[in-house]
Parts: sequence; structure tokens; C-alpha cells
Amino acid sequence: MRAAVYQSAGVVEVVEVPDASISDPKDALVRVVRSCICGSDLWAYRGIIDRAAGSRLGHEFIGVVEAVGSEVTTVKPGDFVVAPFQWSDNTCPACLDGIQTRCEHGGTFGAPGTDGGQGEAVRVPEADGTLVVVPGGLESTDPHLLPGLLALSDVAATGLHGAVLAGVTEGSTVAVVGDGAVGLLAVLGAVKILKAERVILMSRHDDRAALGRSYGATDVVAERGEEGIARVRDLTDGLGVRHVVEAVGTPESWEMSLGMARVGGTVGAVGVPHTSPQLGIFTPFRQHLTLRFGIAPVRHYLPDLVPRVMDGSYDPGAVFDLTLPLAEAADGYLAMSERRSIKTALAG
Amino acid sequence: MRAAVYQSAGVVEVVEVPDASISDPKDALVRVVRSCICGSDLWAYRGIIDRAAGSRLGHEFIGVVEAVGSEVTTVKPGDFVVAPFQWSDNTCPACLDGIQTRCEHGGTFGAPGTDGGQGEAVRVPEADGTLVVVPGGLESTDPHLLPGLLALSDVAATGLHGAVLAGVTEGSTVAVVGDGAVGLLAVLGAVKILKAERVILMSRHDDRAALGRSYGATDVVAERGEEGIARVRDLTDGLGVRHVVEAVGTPESWEMSLGMARVGGTVGAVGVPHTSPQLGIFTPFRQHLTLRFGIAPVRHYLPDLVPRVMDGSYDPGAVFDLTLPLAEAADGYLAMSERRSIKTALAG
Repeated sequence: MRAAVYQSAGVVEVVEVPDASISDPKDALVRVVRSCICGSDLWAYRGIIDRAAGSRLGHEFIGVVEAVGSEVTTVKPGDFVVAPFQWSDNTCPACLDGIQTRCEHGGTFGAPGTDGGQGEAVRVPEADGTLVVVPGGLESTDPHLLPGLLALSDVAATGLHGAVLAGVTEGSTVAVVGDGAVGLLAVLGAVKILKAERVILMSRHDDRAALGRSYGATDVVAERGEEGIARVRDLTDGLGVRHVVEAVGTPESWEMSLGMARVGGTVGAVGVPHTSPQLGIFTPFRQHLTLRFGIAPVRHYLPDLVPRVMDGSYDPGAVFDLTLPLAEAADGYLAMSERRSIKTALAG
Repeated sequence: MRAAVYQSAGVVEVVEVPDASISDPKDALVRVVRSCICGSDLWAYRGIIDRAAGSRLGHEFIGVVEAVGSEVTTVKPGDFVVAPFQWSDNTCPACLDGIQTRCEHGGTFGAPGTDGGQGEAVRVPEADGTLVVVPGGLESTDPHLLPGLLALSDVAATGLHGAVLAGVTEGSTVAVVGDGAVGLLAVLGAVKILKAERVILMSRHDDRAALGRSYGATDVVAERGEEGIARVRDLTDGLGVRHVVEAVGTPESWEMSLGMARVGGTVGAVGVPHTSPQLGIFTPFRQHLTLRFGIAPVRHYLPDLVPRVMDGSYDPGAVFDLTLPLAEAADGYLAMSERRSIKTALAG
């Protein structure tokens, strides 16, 4: 089969790789319908972190089950499924706490020795604890819903998780730091799922700001740093916001997030740090902040989110502004790296 | 009047200072009955931080109101009162959120230009929003209850706040890092007020461990660092604890606190950092932790805690293992600095 592999910084190629196959009785073999490129895939592409030459890429995909191992009971061949970006048994202590991204039998697609999502098929370990079936199957699913379902595999659930960690509830005022797909989908999750009343999106890209507004952002702040903090305070009677979603993960975005939080406020952090940011604890102390961290347990959210996408009440798919055939994955990486695309989907 | 002043590292003297007096219509003048020495007072005493020569000391006291300004309505001369270590108006947005330690008209006793608690009398700004009256007055209060009431002015409420921040509720398992007065009173607060079931106290001093056990600690761990973390994990099926109270504030104690927290756990941080610790955010991310910070809003807790001390159901006073006359304050500093005393009270 064919799959995207990382060759070196800036070089992604779609090449022939060994066919995905079942190797454990808990596995499922899934034929990929759509996959996509993640902001985190760009870290190696841009040379920020190391990645082994020849390693497989991609951890977000939806597809159709082709075969299952002998112990799999909840999915069967022909099922249309959403895969979270990590697999999980859904039965260990962390999973039972709703933190499937710390499953003791879990792992991430695309890690060494596993199939990546950006390929024709994927071996899915712990299939029962990982895959969530889309009712009705692929044939009866409106193709316009595919981007929304694909977004559930990571960014939509991650954005929502950020808003959940930030403590957003009905009527909340929330600020979202980061206008990538995760930040934009934090806006959508805060508004559509958690019923926030006011959402301030930090964005200085017109296209992203416009999408953010369409997702329900009530205010957009283009300024950064101290100026951005001052603008948010101006918008909130000088007090700052009770809920901040940190969806970037850099020292600069952290400084903004901490600076705009109201005394007693909460920062929900889903911007995975790819460097090693250190956080001074004086500001959190002085401001009585709550900081909540975590890589989104997508599997925890899927049973709720899949029906919302299917009934049209929640549409995270608009973050995909470019869709390419798998064979053209390299163009997708370049488009995202050059910020010509918010998020690129790969079809077929 | 006489009051303790800081002269230089290691040198505290009780000297003649200007009489405390009312200078604002919202003030009360309080004659000090008991005050005490705080762990944070030792930072300058030990030369860790700078403090102005001649500056007043102490922020914890109980006393009797001697006079009030024209706008004061809730306390009157003769009332026996507990003072939180910071004054507050109790009406600003932060106060209304229960965070009186960020009151917009607040301040700390003993700061430049204010009276310290370690003296004969104190001018209390914002008296209505600050002082809490002990029902019945000083004459009818059992002298055995005075240490407990004095503890409420800081350490008892601070320990409880740590447990509250850590999310402790009925049946919780909690670890307390720090066996100073605050850590010990976090044990008591977790057990007596919040109904924790299991409390692991990190302590390697026999006297403190014994007091911790008397306060309800079910386990004492003397090891530190990686060994301490391993011991706590051994005690919790390898999973770590859901609730950690960080009552020290050093890089070492933070590392232990983060290391012993269960995936998805919460660290309540009341150990005020006197250096500038930086926190790596990888561990909180990886472990899906919630970190909650803040200098305890003692005033928020006092209306609940004063009656508990008065009816004998809650006795935080045992942390005072040494009581000296005010004139011997210097001996108290030395005893605490040399760890011969957990906490020293100054009488009269």
C-alpha cells in the first residue's frame, strides 16, 4: 500500500510501504477514507524537532473497517469509524477516568512501528476501546459531513477539551489564544457545546478571524503580547477573563494567557509544547489561577460528538480549507507550513 | 508602644515605635492579645530575601478592638476579633469572588507604612471587611482556645485552602508536601473540614510527623525526591494521589508534588515561592494535571472556622509549641529558624 513518510525536514513523500494487517486479536484493519495533516506534524517538517527518516506520518483519520481480530466485539467489517489520534483500551484506570490519552495500553498512530493515518490503511490496536462507529455507514453519510467527522479525530475534540479544561460553562466569557485549527475549534466548542456567551479570539489573520467569527467568536483581538493583554482587559471592565484556552504552547502564548486571566481564573492548556517552556509560578500565585493541562482524550468525547456532527448541529469541518489526494501530501505540508492552509485533508 | 522590628538578617528587636492609631474612618485600632511568627518571616531573618532595616514584623494576630473610625459598623470597642493576615474591603470584585487576598483596597500587615502584628497594637484598615468577631468576647473565651483562634489568622486557613485548591472532598486520598505549620494544618483541614479518608504526610521530623498523625494523617513518608515519589506510589497501587497539597514552594517540593500526582490529579499550591521557581510544563501536560495556586484568602474562611474552634470541633492550635512574651520575640525567631519550634506565639 502507499503512505506518506517523513524523509527529512521539508521532505515528505508518498511511497510504497508494507500493507497494514492484523497482528493481534484486538486489532482492526481500517481502510482510510480521509486523513489530514496536523500542526504537530509540522514540527519535524520545519526542522524544529527530530524525526527518524522514513518514519510514517499522520494520526488523524476516518475509514471503513476491513477486518477485525478474533477478540474484537464492537466493530465489524464494513463499519464506518472515526479513530482518535491515539488508541486506548478504554478499561484501564486512566481510561475509566476519561483520560484515554494516558491509557496503559495506548499509543499514537504514526509512532515508530505503527501505521500512520496518512496512508491507505491502518492497523488499529485495541479496536474496541478506540474506534467509534458512525451510525448508518459510509454509503448513507452525506459527503459534506466527512470533514466534520475527520475533524473529530483530533482538532475538534482538542479544541473542545481546551474549553472544558478552562472551565467554560453556560454564559461564560472566554478568551482563546491561538487561531490554528485547535483554537478555532475551541471557539466552536465553547459556543456550541458549552454555551459560552462571549468568546474573544486572539487572531491577526483575516481568514482565520473570519472563520472564528462564523464559529461564534464575539470579539477578535489582533494585538499580541502586552497590547493584546491590555485589549482583552479593556473588553472585560479591566478585570480579564475567567476562562482562557491556551492553544499554542509557546512561552509567548503562555505569557499572554496568564496575563489576560482574571484573578481566580482558569487556563485550559492544550497547546502542546514542542520546546520546553518553563512557567514562572509567581503570576499564577499572585493571580490565584488554575492551570489545567492535557493532551485531549479524544476517545472520551467521540460518543457525544459523532451524533452532533451527523445531525448537523455541530460542524467543525470548515477548518479544512484544502483537500488533496493522498499522493499530493507533500503539497499539503507545504501549504500548511506556509500558512496558506489552516488545515489540509487528504482524500483516499 | 512596643513592637518587633527587623534590623538585619538574624537580628530582630522589640523597640519603642509610634502608637498605633486610627487615621481613616474605616480603621479599627486593635490591642493585640496574641500574635505569632510565620515561616515567611524567616525568609528575611535567614537572609534569603531583603527587608528594610527597621521595618515592622508580623501579620498574624488576635486582639480586642479599642476604637473604631466613624464609618465602621460591624465591630465595636470591646469586641474580641481575629484578623486575617491581609486586610480587605470584602466588597470589590475579587473579594466577592472569595479572593480577599487580591482585594483592590487590600494590603498585608507589616508591610511598609503599616503596623505589624508582632506589637502591642495594630491599626486595621478596612475594619468591616477584615475583622471577624469571636462571639462572647475575650473574657468568656476559654484560654485554651486562644492558640486555635490565633492559628486562624493565617496557617490554619492557609492549610485548609491548600486542601480546597487540591480538590479534596469526602473520601479523598491526599498527599501533603511540607510538614511546617501550613502542611500540618492542611492535614487537619483535609480530615476535619473536608472529610478526606486517607492523608499521606511527607515528613522526616518525628515531632512534626507525630502532630500530623494526631491531626489525622494516615501515613507518613520520610523519603524525599524520587524515593518519596516511589513510596507514595507504592501506597496508592502505583497510581499516585489525586490530590496533592504543595505547602513548601521550592523547586524540590514542586518536583515531588508533580511526581506523586495521579494522572488527572490536582495540586493545590499554597507554598509561597520566595525564590523564582520555574515549572516545566511537560509533566503537567503528560500527566493531565490541574495546578491551582493562591495565597489563602483567610477572610473567606474565617466566618466558618471561628465557630468550629469555639465549639471545640476543630483545633489547629497545637502547631504552637512555644509561647513567649512579645519582649522575647528574638528568641522565637531563633527557635523557629533552628527548627526547635514549629510555630511560636507571642503573648501580650
